[in-house]
Amino acid sequence: MTLQPITRVPDKEELLRTLDAIRPFIHRTPVMTCTALNRLSGASLFFKCENFQKIGAFKMRGAASAALRLTDEEKAKGIATHSSGNHAQAVARAAQVLGIPAYIVMPDNAPGIKKTATAGYGAEIVFCAPTQAAREAALEEVVQRTGAHFIHPYNDYNVIAGQASAALELLQDYPGLDAVMAPIGGGGLMSGTALTCRYFTPSVKIYGAEPEMVNDAYRSFHSGKIESNASTNTLADGLRTNLGEKTFAIIREHLEEVLTVSEESIVEAMRHIWERMKIIIEPSCAVPFAAVLSYPEAFRGKKVGLILTGGNVDLGNLPFK
Amino acid sequence: MTLQPITRVPDKEELLRTLDAIRPFIHRTPVMTCTALNRLSGASLFFKCENFQKIGAFKMRGAASAALRLTDEEKAKGIATHSSGNHAQAVARAAQVLGIPAYIVMPDNAPGIKKTATAGYGAEIVFCAPTQAAREAALEEVVQRTGAHFIHPYNDYNVIAGQASAALELLQDYPGLDAVMAPIGGGGLMSGTALTCRYFTPSVKIYGAEPEMVNDAYRSFHSGKIESNASTNTLADGLRTNLGEKTFAIIREHLEEVLTVSEESIVEAMRHIWERMKIIIEPSCAVPFAAVLSYPEAFRGKKVGLILTGGNVDLGNLPFK
Repeated sequence: MTLQPITRVPDKEELLRTLDAIRPFIHRTPVMTCTALNRLSGASLFFKCENFQKIGAFKMRGAASAALRLTDEEKAKGIATHSSGNHAQAVARAAQVLGIPAYIVMPDNAPGIKKTATAGYGAEIVFCAPTQAAREAALEEVVQRTGAHFIHPYNDYNVIAGQASAALELLQDYPGLDAVMAPIGGGGLMSGTALTCRYFTPSVKIYGAEPEMVNDAYRSFHSGKIESNASTNTLADGLRTNLGEKTFAIIREHLEEVLTVSEESIVEAMRHIWERMKIIIEPSCAVPFAAVLSYPEAFRGKKVGLILTGGNVDLGNLPFK
Repeated sequence: MTLQPITRVPDKEELLRTLDAIRPFIHRTPVMTCTALNRLSGASLFFKCENFQKIGAFKMRGAASAALRLTDEEKAKGIATHSSGNHAQAVARAAQVLGIPAYIVMPDNAPGIKKTATAGYGAEIVFCAPTQAAREAALEEVVQRTGAHFIHPYNDYNVIAGQASAALELLQDYPGLDAVMAPIGGGGLMSGTALTCRYFTPSVKIYGAEPEMVNDAYRSFHSGKIESNASTNTLADGLRTNLGEKTFAIIREHLEEVLTVSEESIVEAMRHIWERMKIIIEPSCAVPFAAVLSYPEAFRGKKVGLILTGGNVDLGNLPFK
């Protein structure tokens, strides 16, 4: 069966087809529970562990979903993106599995470990100055030169359908959840999670979580237009991006609320998860659990699914004292 | 069915009975695999994740096994031990589950987090000076005063039978292993692991792993008598103890070899497991994987089971730079 590119909000069958198609690229990650954190929060928490995903983050799902939908001709020319983070590794590995070229534009000040990991998947890395304009210019040049297909990190229905598969697995394992929450960066995971929940468990309440310091999604959700952040000063480095128009429209339609949390509560939530669950998660991933602890009245006594998005951290630079 | 106290080396049926009896006290922990670490080591590795065990370490198994075998009269008087580590929490929680008193002797300089965790299980903590003599005197006083039953951390067949259940679950999940390795401190886990392997998969090679800095088990294995360490200067703080006569006899009879590793290799192995498997393990737990990396010729192409013993670390004091 050939997958067709998705050009409008994906429907229920499209989400099921996508999960089926990307299985060879991904782990079916476990859902963990923790008595101590249930006691602490007063809720029953179900953690979908995408930190155990291939390349260490849910981004593998979206990149695979988009890459798989290219024609053979497009595939031959390869795929490209600009990212210094998990999306770079996801695109590089999707290309490696498919046996096609990948071109990744990275700021020249990206951490050595990210460069090494991306190069380790066989991608060609193109360095640029660490500004948004330089990234976009470098990507444009790469696409012109190679004819590679640009895979956007979030504002793409093919990517959204891939990210939706994390919540789909969660709801298959635990169909009776009262609420599901994901963190919001560009909104790819959040919009995919929202579609899955609405289609497969219509009664479930869908929450987004975001650092107060970069509360663009909270403001966008309430103002009705895409807002941006004055600064990006948060520990949750995966959540600094603004929404795209595709992700925003889905989020606006389906979310109950966007909950914002302080930097202190993010570090505290991250520490609880490390200490009690014995798993390594990125600061961005701790944001939904921080929201459960910061808004206890919304979750007390409820069965709540939380997507833990990734586990790629710099062990030499941790926020614990 | 009432469990009888074990007064000689436990047999096969005793190990099966013990696993059955302690189930309500423990998690059946997952066995994890990791493509990246298989590639790095050239072996197929199966990690038994006791870092996800109740109280964060395999010690829960032995404490439950010993506590369950007390008579009702003994139980009424409670259980006691001296420990600043995982055994303290294990004894405290076993008592809590059984609804009996627990008395834990701890050095007054024990980390606050250990005191809090142990007290959290409802145990009475008795503080003493941080010397072996002071610990033993304080324990003696507690036992005299309360009539509580002392649960030794390792040199006790009831405890050994409990620790044996980790390897038993591992071999039930993966019956075809070529080798199994555990770290050696006092030898409770190691001797239990050795018995399980010998009874249930007689062909499997059984290895112990130990820091070079505290290589008492290596020297004991080769000299034929229990040796002690001149210093305890290792990051692997769970492995500083000497063997007891019960654990030593079992280890001497069944092990292939005791492999010793450098402090640098322990930190490197720990970092690999944190970074690639995204799980939190104690330095002591990294020792067997460090041995796989340090003695590649012994393990290349083999299916190797490794017991990850625990995940209780001080996040404010990690060995990574």
